[in-house]
Amino acid sequence: MSQTPRYTPLVASLPASVPFVGPETQERARGRRFAARLGANESLFGPSPRAIAAMAQAASESWMYGDPENHDLRAALAAHHGVGAENIVVGEGIDGLLGYLTRLTIAPGDTVVSTNGSYPTFNFHVAGFGGTVQKLPYRDDRTDPQALLDAARATGARLIYLANPDNPMGSHHAAETILAMIDALPAGTLMLLDEAYIDLAPDGTSPAIAADDPRVIRLRTFSKGYGMAGVRVGYAVAAAGLIAAFDKVRNHFGVGRIVQAGALAALADQDWLAQVRAKVIAARAEIGRIARENGLHPLPSAANFVTIDCGRDGDFARAVLRELIARDIFVRMPFAAPQDRCIRVSAGDEAALQAFAKALPEALKAAR
Amino acid sequence: MSQTPRYTPLVASLPASVPFVGPETQERARGRRFAARLGANESLFGPSPRAIAAMAQAASESWMYGDPENHDLRAALAAHHGVGAENIVVGEGIDGLLGYLTRLTIAPGDTVVSTNGSYPTFNFHVAGFGGTVQKLPYRDDRTDPQALLDAARATGARLIYLANPDNPMGSHHAAETILAMIDALPAGTLMLLDEAYIDLAPDGTSPAIAADDPRVIRLRTFSKGYGMAGVRVGYAVAAAGLIAAFDKVRNHFGVGRIVQAGALAALADQDWLAQVRAKVIAARAEIGRIARENGLHPLPSAANFVTIDCGRDGDFARAVLRELIARDIFVRMPFAAPQDRCIRVSAGDEAALQAFAKALPEALKAAR
Repeated sequence: MSQTPRYTPLVASLPASVPFVGPETQERARGRRFAARLGANESLFGPSPRAIAAMAQAASESWMYGDPENHDLRAALAAHHGVGAENIVVGEGIDGLLGYLTRLTIAPGDTVVSTNGSYPTFNFHVAGFGGTVQKLPYRDDRTDPQALLDAARATGARLIYLANPDNPMGSHHAAETILAMIDALPAGTLMLLDEAYIDLAPDGTSPAIAADDPRVIRLRTFSKGYGMAGVRVGYAVAAAGLIAAFDKVRNHFGVGRIVQAGALAALADQDWLAQVRAKVIAARAEIGRIARENGLHPLPSAANFVTIDCGRDGDFARAVLRELIARDIFVRMPFAAPQDRCIRVSAGDEAALQAFAKALPEALKAAR
Repeated sequence: MSQTPRYTPLVASLPASVPFVGPETQERARGRRFAARLGANESLFGPSPRAIAAMAQAASESWMYGDPENHDLRAALAAHHGVGAENIVVGEGIDGLLGYLTRLTIAPGDTVVSTNGSYPTFNFHVAGFGGTVQKLPYRDDRTDPQALLDAARATGARLIYLANPDNPMGSHHAAETILAMIDALPAGTLMLLDEAYIDLAPDGTSPAIAADDPRVIRLRTFSKGYGMAGVRVGYAVAAAGLIAAFDKVRNHFGVGRIVQAGALAALADQDWLAQVRAKVIAARAEIGRIARENGLHPLPSAANFVTIDCGRDGDFARAVLRELIARDIFVRMPFAAPQDRCIRVSAGDEAALQAFAKALPEALKAAR
């Protein structure tokens, strides 16, 4: 007699993995809240007040399903990027879009190429559809375009995943490097350009890509610069054919009414984004100062966090992390060696960075 | 040279289908808004004011990711149902959960059994994972438990989909019928009991199912009775093993912070739900009265809508629908014969039902 339910062979083979443990889980285990939430690259500067107001207003209208075509938001995003609405798909954060894109392109046995330590949620999705992630090492703490291209060619990869700026290292490549990489892609390899952190990067980091270029899909989010991580909304920009394919698999009503209203208002408030960017740049400098003051080496960052080289091995950085958490400072760190010699600290507001500055010397002392 | 991107063979074979066209799409095509939004079984009585307030409050905290474990909401739901938190998974509406469940259980070539005209989004998901939906006819406008069981046995179906109360017909079975059906399930067939409309059904419609019963998964939503369709939150109740399997595939951060806060507050306001239920019962009576006044036959309903037999064939009902829409009344209708002799009208507030009452005789006249 067969067991109920019967899972697919692929699902039966999957581990019960979770890409990230949330800070709330840690808080429940510790029995108290964090004093500074600097581990998930959330924006402590918050969403635009206009976005907050739009979401509060939309809450009272939330008895209505959201528009499944996300028409108004797509139109606004299209105008913002100078592309057509047919080049935009909105989804449940970049996480949701990565799931859909992986489902569209990855069948059991297919390969993708990524960087060791890059986004675990992408790896989760690829494994979830039976694919294999070939993880390449960083080169001087940056993603390595040539190595990614070589590996894609060697493996016949369906996708190259490249985050620019990179998480968890904060490093980035200039637009020309990305464009040269696109030109050198093997036939049949789609470049998945994750620009989650682009709003915080130096001007000139985002390449100009023709809207109908079938070789690349660009992912953006309202979670980082726009400060709306808890709203769950991201979008992809790509050729119309690929965008249309999402309709074959996406949860059509998955982006709710409050979400659409919030993203639309946030996009319209570019002044707020500029202010946040200035605050993030100042916070990066302050994190760097705190790190150096403690004899540590902050890596250059183009994102809303600073990755700090703790100067020894992974065990030491893990001890520092543990001691920071014990002092109510939520931070995370890269998973893989040798980048796991670092901890990663989100650009916080003054209070959070003061708490970090106070805890760091104690944590270092305890870790040593 | 291979084209970019390369889709999986399954995806390449899928049609570019969309389960539902939203009312906004129709409004854009018509160039004006609907006067009465009675087509999507939304709750015109709205969410609990406490849920609205909780969502507005959470909007200002939405810079933080929502708890990926949905801990507080799951704990509250578990208490509400008298089960453990390990028996609950929260997702992006029933639509999202249907997608995950289908992914867990359906591989190409697998079969599910459903009722002809039942939920197109479920069919969309099954087709999307390469499965086949065997659609059985209604029996006297009700789902047919014995026929579903027989077909599941004959086809070795992975799933039986049963909505109780049923959409689009509004009919329902008593709890004993559902329990008898579960006891008669073929080995290896999971019963997917969609209880989206249960909050509006007569007492005794929802069966008592042991939390650890591996034969059935129950789906619930905040979209209907709780009036939060645009928030996108639903949950499943099932044995812990099946619930844990969702972690292999779900978008772990997919249920955002505002969503969790809203659902938690809505669940706590059972008074509001009771008030809405009373209003829905009154609205069903009023829709029935309007139908009879126009010589039509309203079917009994246990849901937040009334399905009205227009007394002729599908072409006639489609003409009535078209004429109602031309008069700014958004309604829908069953897709498949002979149920397509009907139109389906959501339980509206007084203004919406007055608009419907005014438009219906004109629409009938024009359709004739």
